[in-house]
Amino acid sequence: MLTESVSGLEHLAQSESMFALANGNIGLRGNLDEGEPWAQPGTYLNGFFESRPLPYAETGYGYPEAGQTVVNITNGKIFRLLVDDEPFDMRRGRVLAHERALDLRAGVLRRRVTWRSPGHRTVKVSSTRMVSFRQRAMVAIEYEVEVFDSSARVVVQSELVANETTPMPSADPRVAAALEHPLRGVGHAARDRSVYLIHQTERSGLAVVAMMDHLVEGPERVEITSDASDDLGRVTFITTLGTGQRLRIVKMVGYGWSGHRSVPALRDQAAAALAAAWHTGWEGMLLEQRTFLDGFWKYADVAIEGDPELQHAIRFAMFHLLQAGARAEGRALAAKGLTGPGYDGHAFWDCESFVLPVLTFTFPRAARDALIWRHSILPSARRRATQLGLKGAAFPWRTIAGEECSAYWPAGTAAFHVNADIAVAAMRYVAATGDIDFEERFGVELMVRTAQLWVSLGYFDRDGGFRIDGVTGPDEYSAVADNNVYTNLKAKQNLRGAADALERHRGRCPEVTDEEIAHWRRAADAMVIPYDEVLAVHPQSEGFTDHAVWDFDATDHYPLMMHSPYVDLYRKQVVKQADLTLALDDCGDEFTDAEKVRDFEYYEPLTVRDSSLSACTQAIVAAETGHLQLAYDYLGEAAFMDLDDLSHNTRDGLHMASLAGSWLALVCGFGGMRDHGGRLTFKPRIPEQAVRLRFSMQWRGGHLQVEVTTTSATYTCIDGDPITLTHHGEEVQAIKNSPITRPIPPFPDRPNPGQPKGRAPKHRGERLDNTERTGRKESTRALP
Amino acid sequence: MLTESVSGLEHLAQSESMFALANGNIGLRGNLDEGEPWAQPGTYLNGFFESRPLPYAETGYGYPEAGQTVVNITNGKIFRLLVDDEPFDMRRGRVLAHERALDLRAGVLRRRVTWRSPGHRTVKVSSTRMVSFRQRAMVAIEYEVEVFDSSARVVVQSELVANETTPMPSADPRVAAALEHPLRGVGHAARDRSVYLIHQTERSGLAVVAMMDHLVEGPERVEITSDASDDLGRVTFITTLGTGQRLRIVKMVGYGWSGHRSVPALRDQAAAALAAAWHTGWEGMLLEQRTFLDGFWKYADVAIEGDPELQHAIRFAMFHLLQAGARAEGRALAAKGLTGPGYDGHAFWDCESFVLPVLTFTFPRAARDALIWRHSILPSARRRATQLGLKGAAFPWRTIAGEECSAYWPAGTAAFHVNADIAVAAMRYVAATGDIDFEERFGVELMVRTAQLWVSLGYFDRDGGFRIDGVTGPDEYSAVADNNVYTNLKAKQNLRGAADALERHRGRCPEVTDEEIAHWRRAADAMVIPYDEVLAVHPQSEGFTDHAVWDFDATDHYPLMMHSPYVDLYRKQVVKQADLTLALDDCGDEFTDAEKVRDFEYYEPLTVRDSSLSACTQAIVAAETGHLQLAYDYLGEAAFMDLDDLSHNTRDGLHMASLAGSWLALVCGFGGMRDHGGRLTFKPRIPEQAVRLRFSMQWRGGHLQVEVTTTSATYTCIDGDPITLTHHGEEVQAIKNSPITRPIPPFPDRPNPGQPKGRAPKHRGERLDNTERTGRKESTRALP
Repeated sequence: MLTESVSGLEHLAQSESMFALANGNIGLRGNLDEGEPWAQPGTYLNGFFESRPLPYAETGYGYPEAGQTVVNITNGKIFRLLVDDEPFDMRRGRVLAHERALDLRAGVLRRRVTWRSPGHRTVKVSSTRMVSFRQRAMVAIEYEVEVFDSSARVVVQSELVANETTPMPSADPRVAAALEHPLRGVGHAARDRSVYLIHQTERSGLAVVAMMDHLVEGPERVEITSDASDDLGRVTFITTLGTGQRLRIVKMVGYGWSGHRSVPALRDQAAAALAAAWHTGWEGMLLEQRTFLDGFWKYADVAIEGDPELQHAIRFAMFHLLQAGARAEGRALAAKGLTGPGYDGHAFWDCESFVLPVLTFTFPRAARDALIWRHSILPSARRRATQLGLKGAAFPWRTIAGEECSAYWPAGTAAFHVNADIAVAAMRYVAATGDIDFEERFGVELMVRTAQLWVSLGYFDRDGGFRIDGVTGPDEYSAVADNNVYTNLKAKQNLRGAADALERHRGRCPEVTDEEIAHWRRAADAMVIPYDEVLAVHPQSEGFTDHAVWDFDATDHYPLMMHSPYVDLYRKQVVKQADLTLALDDCGDEFTDAEKVRDFEYYEPLTVRDSSLSACTQAIVAAETGHLQLAYDYLGEAAFMDLDDLSHNTRDGLHMASLAGSWLALVCGFGGMRDHGGRLTFKPRIPEQAVRLRFSMQWRGGHLQVEVTTTSATYTCIDGDPITLTHHGEEVQAIKNSPITRPIPPFPDRPNPGQPKGRAPKHRGERLDNTERTGRKESTRALP
Repeated sequence: MLTESVSGLEHLAQSESMFALANGNIGLRGNLDEGEPWAQPGTYLNGFFESRPLPYAETGYGYPEAGQTVVNITNGKIFRLLVDDEPFDMRRGRVLAHERALDLRAGVLRRRVTWRSPGHRTVKVSSTRMVSFRQRAMVAIEYEVEVFDSSARVVVQSELVANETTPMPSADPRVAAALEHPLRGVGHAARDRSVYLIHQTERSGLAVVAMMDHLVEGPERVEITSDASDDLGRVTFITTLGTGQRLRIVKMVGYGWSGHRSVPALRDQAAAALAAAWHTGWEGMLLEQRTFLDGFWKYADVAIEGDPELQHAIRFAMFHLLQAGARAEGRALAAKGLTGPGYDGHAFWDCESFVLPVLTFTFPRAARDALIWRHSILPSARRRATQLGLKGAAFPWRTIAGEECSAYWPAGTAAFHVNADIAVAAMRYVAATGDIDFEERFGVELMVRTAQLWVSLGYFDRDGGFRIDGVTGPDEYSAVADNNVYTNLKAKQNLRGAADALERHRGRCPEVTDEEIAHWRRAADAMVIPYDEVLAVHPQSEGFTDHAVWDFDATDHYPLMMHSPYVDLYRKQVVKQADLTLALDDCGDEFTDAEKVRDFEYYEPLTVRDSSLSACTQAIVAAETGHLQLAYDYLGEAAFMDLDDLSHNTRDGLHMASLAGSWLALVCGFGGMRDHGGRLTFKPRIPEQAVRLRFSMQWRGGHLQVEVTTTSATYTCIDGDPITLTHHGEEVQAIKNSPITRPIPPFPDRPNPGQPKGRAPKHRGERLDNTERTGRKESTRALP
């Protein structure tokens, strides 16, 4: 269990993201109970968005005309409190104590605040907030007020508020476009302690319901009234509390949305969810939540001895990954989860390339659901391919509901690799779980339609090579280049995987001929992978290593894209985020060890990490190529991206890919885990600073635990059939209750190849005493 | 002299552009005198624009935030006519005869219309409209009404109208963004027959004055009143005309604009221009106009015997080129001249690469002025270079006042070749005129600042080659590619020219060291020119010939950019407009004859000519490489671009570059004229269909006339010092009054290499009788 306190409001914006609660369906930013102050009020329902026009000063064929933006829906978190004459507000009076804690085992956000009003009344407010993993439509909050010193009249207003004011976005294009007053009231009612509001969006035509009901305990005389209007639902509790007396309110809020169900149907859906919640009761829901999380942590927990900070960080990360995906069920897993409005609430390739590899091994049900969402948007993706003059499916670079929402095609539509990322994620999920039912019903079609895209996108050149020209790889400081190594290798995996899968399920996609399948295999076999013979490294795309190297010595300001034009970035050797290095990881079986070393060391001095999607990949490949300290430093960057607000935009939501990246850096980096070709292999090796690394994985229904020290690794099958794996190339069978320990072969440390000036990751130093570290960082860190 | 009649209003939009009058300072679209019907009302002052925000759904560093759009200013062309009770309107009553004629010798637009009102009154309206070449602030119109059958009461309202309604732009991005009500009235007055209106723009803060005054002749009793309000100035003439009586009004309109002069100063400036015009008088202005044009035609006329249609077309073209540039004097020479709102009224590289080569040899004063305009915007261009992280100057891709207005950088900012185009145009102007004063005061700095750009943009690679990566060449169906041959060769010319010029004028740019100059020469010497050894052709950019060839057989719809996304176009071998072929022409001394043949024949089947900037270049290189018929066909396309509305957008203004291209196709194509390295060379060769081609050129103050038949060429120095030139490689001295005739060597015709399906230029057939052709085309052609 992991809790810590924060004091004050200095990091309000960041802490609202970090203290966010979600279950993959509902997301609540960690706004204060009393509603104000806020940095960004946020209540989200996965998939609920408003459309907005995408403006172009110069438009072009195939540019998306409409964007989709996540909407801050009806806020059901608010409890306003009046103590005698004075509204409870952290900015007034005096805060005597304040503590918030995200309880990662219990799955609740707790808050305790003791406050003295300007009129010298002292109250203690305690709240426990939960977004239920078991009851996906439900938010539950326990709110308690206690009065000290003398008796006081207390008024609590429990509210539903729609169309809250939200801050204007900054000039940074990454910040979501603001939508003012996106909701139009179409129904509301108040009765006793229960109120509901129903709203509809103007352009996307979606309807959302929020319904609340309350249970109250306190002095005998508590007066309760309720009222509702378009944008406000309110239940008011009035009482007088004597010294030491408490008023306790349990608030249940049910949410629902739909694009086609009627207002009465939505109302009843919320009422039914509420009824089920009352049936379970507050204590019952707490118990359910803990039980759910116990099941999650069994596989998801990673223990790292010797670095308590990192230990905190990895658990924080896994908890938030669960919150993003647990109950998405047919909806996207967005780049920020449901923690903020960043990137307009869109899902990107981050999901399949960073988040799903983690969930596949720790909480596979969520990985399955996310891939089923991709399958559900295949109709849009097929239309998009047709519009682009291509076959198969072209998945959107960024979307909520399936349509392409990227307004800058060189770093959107041209980044076709997202299609292979999706297909390969499906292949990985099937290989890791053995879920043949999924493969047949969803996986095959994802692989086939993307394979069809690749063969229509690429072509056989005059030398018989299969080229894929004019695409953008992961690195967004290059664009529209030929034969991006990452893209081509992933397309190759995609093509072969599709051929294999379709041959396993020949009844699916019956229109695909054997000749077409053979064509995919030929394209995969002939895939062009450029190589620079003189430098003996792979250019990330054709011609990349011929370009001038960016003048890093003359560069002081990052991120570069905020200080230099694309026209300068694109024509230089400068890498925003791991691209060829990501290929070394994701497609590691396509490179020799020597190539990996040369390639990694070539790209390190070129990679500026202006994206949060980079550090974890660099950690993994650094670990593999003998740069353990560097790997440890990169792991730190990935793990503390949000806790330390390293990108200065945690306010807009957490970086799900980077959170996932801390697991990847630990398990694939120091654990050396790979699953190339569906085979489980390990080359564990941990740095001196760590005493012990222990992680679990689900593999084909079984539970594998791996424990690594600096000298040996122990593989334990906790549950299930024997698991075949390799340890540093040696095949090992992990059998239930028979831990197998193997020594870790020595491996020479290689010198740090260096990074661009000022862009080396922060050094993660010697093992430190816990209190010393946390004490030192207290002021800049809001949560462990 | 060249006039023809049109009937009806079917081609109103096109004819408004074709009948436009301009002097490089003022432009009047060929709107009807009575104001309506119109397709696009248009009155322009060169340099007068409004700013507007450029919207981006995803913005980026260095994206221009404000666009500039030419403004339709106060319309002074309008004469409304009331005959008895009936307003004169071509859509009502009955048009008995209607004729408009653009008199290319007199420099006026004449109109004669005989109209019977619904009330059975017959009137004849005659007007003669002029934008004076000699008095650049002046428009003069003679308007005459004659009544037949019986007497009628006639009311003529001569107007100034501001903020006219203009049509909404189409979805085509090339069409100018509309600006509604861009003008705010800041002063007006009416006195006797004179009215003025002064307006200001909201954002660009420019002020414009229009002042009119009148002279009237007619029956003894003509009542005259005048009035003015913010957007309307009006002088009303009322009289009764007996049968055969006429009312004649001469209207003078003076225009002026300024960004800093006061309202009274502007008013007085217009009044002074008007006073000078009255001093000259209507007849005097007609005479001035003809004298001016006589001077122009002496050098600008091209005679082509055997193809009267083409003869018409080339004169039409030269007249409009003169109108675009004659009195621009410190202002831009826009892509549409002052004939319409297309491309927002912006100037592009078209000016230096297509229009100035023509003006340099035919009306060099205008070429000089256009280059001085470029010099005047050097401060903006230097700021832009700094913003882009580059040295020297980065001229805008499109602009009115100097600031970059291109909102799509891959086909804007990345098209750096515009800088070399400007420098080379200056070099050409100096070589052709010997204008050392210009070189010292303006030319050197243009060349030096652009040379500095190139050395900061490119770099010496590991093999010692000088590369220029990530730029866009002329072909807009490829973008952001490495070592574009055209760009690199032009940069090479730029660098050498700058070094030579600066060594001639070492006092200019004293901060440039000898080492820097030597650096330019080294970069030029080492310039990388990619070559495909297997295909034995030059790829237009690195890797181009490795791409898949566009599937032309499956393509029915053009222009491709309206039916296919850039992501598809950019990665295929498909060429929008001559790119490598333009290099073969512009930098012909860098290629062997055999290379030219192979390259031209390679690119022909890939070039779709979705740009009006292509046909003329293809004509020139086709002629050089032994494809005379093909050259003739392309010449036809260039020459009839507007007359036949081949791009379907002549309504938005004439294509100045294509008009210039018809001269280039004749003189550089069939005349085989080149000026590489400042040496004048000819390789004339004309197709069978033409009997004789005769053109003039100014060369270092002298007047050279070249006359070509199918078998020989005659060079005559009409005036000036002897001119040294070569004829098919043989050096020849053209001495005054001593025509020299040389035979044309035989040259085998090569078979047409073929064009994309459906994209071959229209065949220009056998020599035809004049009447037969013009008769046949009458219905689709609005003007000869």
